[in-house]
Amino acid sequence: MIVRALLLFSALALTLSCVTARAVEPLPSWNDTSPRKTIIAFVEKVTKEGSPDFVPAPERIATFDNDGTLWVEQPMYFQALFIFDRIKALAPQHPEWESKEPFASVLKGDVNAALAGGEKALLEMAMATHADMTTAEFDDIVRNWIATARHPKTGRLYTEMVYQPMLELLAYLRASGFKTFIVSGGGIEFMRPWTERVYGIPPEQVVGSSIKTKYEVRGGRPALVRLPELNFIDDGGGKPIGIQAHIGRRPLIAVGNSDGDFEMLEWTVSGGGSRLALIVHHTDGTREFQYDRESHVGRLDKALDVAERRGWIIVDMKRDWRRIYPSEPDGK
Amino acid sequence: MIVRALLLFSALALTLSCVTARAVEPLPSWNDTSPRKTIIAFVEKVTKEGSPDFVPAPERIATFDNDGTLWVEQPMYFQALFIFDRIKALAPQHPEWESKEPFASVLKGDVNAALAGGEKALLEMAMATHADMTTAEFDDIVRNWIATARHPKTGRLYTEMVYQPMLELLAYLRASGFKTFIVSGGGIEFMRPWTERVYGIPPEQVVGSSIKTKYEVRGGRPALVRLPELNFIDDGGGKPIGIQAHIGRRPLIAVGNSDGDFEMLEWTVSGGGSRLALIVHHTDGTREFQYDRESHVGRLDKALDVAERRGWIIVDMKRDWRRIYPSEPDGK
Repeated sequence: MIVRALLLFSALALTLSCVTARAVEPLPSWNDTSPRKTIIAFVEKVTKEGSPDFVPAPERIATFDNDGTLWVEQPMYFQALFIFDRIKALAPQHPEWESKEPFASVLKGDVNAALAGGEKALLEMAMATHADMTTAEFDDIVRNWIATARHPKTGRLYTEMVYQPMLELLAYLRASGFKTFIVSGGGIEFMRPWTERVYGIPPEQVVGSSIKTKYEVRGGRPALVRLPELNFIDDGGGKPIGIQAHIGRRPLIAVGNSDGDFEMLEWTVSGGGSRLALIVHHTDGTREFQYDRESHVGRLDKALDVAERRGWIIVDMKRDWRRIYPSEPDGK
Repeated sequence: MIVRALLLFSALALTLSCVTARAVEPLPSWNDTSPRKTIIAFVEKVTKEGSPDFVPAPERIATFDNDGTLWVEQPMYFQALFIFDRIKALAPQHPEWESKEPFASVLKGDVNAALAGGEKALLEMAMATHADMTTAEFDDIVRNWIATARHPKTGRLYTEMVYQPMLELLAYLRASGFKTFIVSGGGIEFMRPWTERVYGIPPEQVVGSSIKTKYEVRGGRPALVRLPELNFIDDGGGKPIGIQAHIGRRPLIAVGNSDGDFEMLEWTVSGGGSRLALIVHHTDGTREFQYDRESHVGRLDKALDVAERRGWIIVDMKRDWRRIYPSEPDGK
């Protein structure tokens, strides 16, 4: 009898907690402007059984860009800052870097000179810091960096510079039966060590750029060795390719913030039925950073031109977000 | 009051149904021999909170080979049979195939002659039948074939030639908080159209071999076009690479049946903590097919040699499985 009473009690508690959870308004850090209303209306219609727009839970896929969509990307992509920090850390083992560009400029603290070498220079620095170690070793390096490195402007940990409204959107979608994925131009193994803790997105739901790896048994211990050779660039037209390769279904919702997300948004909304494309527009120079068409990082130009015509929703950070970071007090 | 009573009632019903579900014995089509006992003891210890072997649910990853592990692979890989059927279907559009090997032999019904060209011939046939169409078109072709094509020996649909004990193992693991993945040398897009229906494994949990794709907007409609170029071979040392690329975590359990699974099993058990590696040994020539060291398809030689020493569990189909196919009556 006691067992039965306990069962009843715990079952009741469960039921009540579900009821309570549902009563909370979704997306509290969003102002009740058009994007919030559109998102909620969309989620309600695709999750309502019997609705003509109903989509079964396994097909509810939502893909999110990372840089500039889930976390800040200014003054430059955080992975570039990671590369510079790694070059400094590795310099003692590479005396030749003191006189070899682009490394020499990084070591002198002149990042702009280092980046003047364009894509080739960036790739060279990426390979020098991301390859020739095992996947486990790289995972450790990223974990240590992300736990201690701080943003040059705010002095905050990078994982504190994520967007509170986006954390709420991820949680709201998951509570509505969606599976949330990251689809980012950033390195897949640069994101996985912390996306589960910060975004609730497990490693198997992270899609990103990658280098090749090799399976090797070293002294009886198997390892995956990271090779200095590009495998896949998950940007632009690469995003639909990465989505197909990893997920194998077209998203219902895609969220991005730059022209690198153009093809992901286009691919998503052309899937037939109800689909939603969102673009985060960085309009708030006071609370965050203000940039779009002319920015070298996260340029938003072509996608901004077609958004209205194609029915893609522009999220105006200044107008639509009540709060930017988790650490901020609620309200403007 | 009525509402509250209803809530209580439905909550109680839920609780009781959970209790009932747990009371059912797992793995009913397995004889109660050593493999079944080992699997159950393993699952109980890694899922028991407070146990020194406890593993949190998000880290409970199980990977399964497909050919010869989840479904039959004799008299040859079913995807090869698909290729031959496609060559016959496409022949009218390729009059040149009548005199061009390996196609000419396939059209004459002499599959062995076609395969005499080795890997090069197989690759040529694969590309001729898998590429130069969109991903959506290929998906349709696979769906139609898998719904109608029949096994040359049994006359059954291929999806009926899956192993009942493995369906039960997949379900048991999922009920124990595991996420189940396929990690197969077969084509990823050849499996995805039916793995959810047949195995309960959604497209995003299928890892396999692939060809390259290209994003293209054709007449205003975006498409992913399949290119006649290999992208990745998910076999041998490719399996740990594919696991890392798609899942980003090491499995707790890996199940295979051939030397192509060797590295996946090795990678899995070397992950530290409690891990389980299983090898399906095809020992039942009456109910299924009997083969191992000398077989051209699904050769099991090197893995058989080391299994005992490394603690990999051999599942002897004849001894350990009470039932092979879902359609069979229970019991021998």
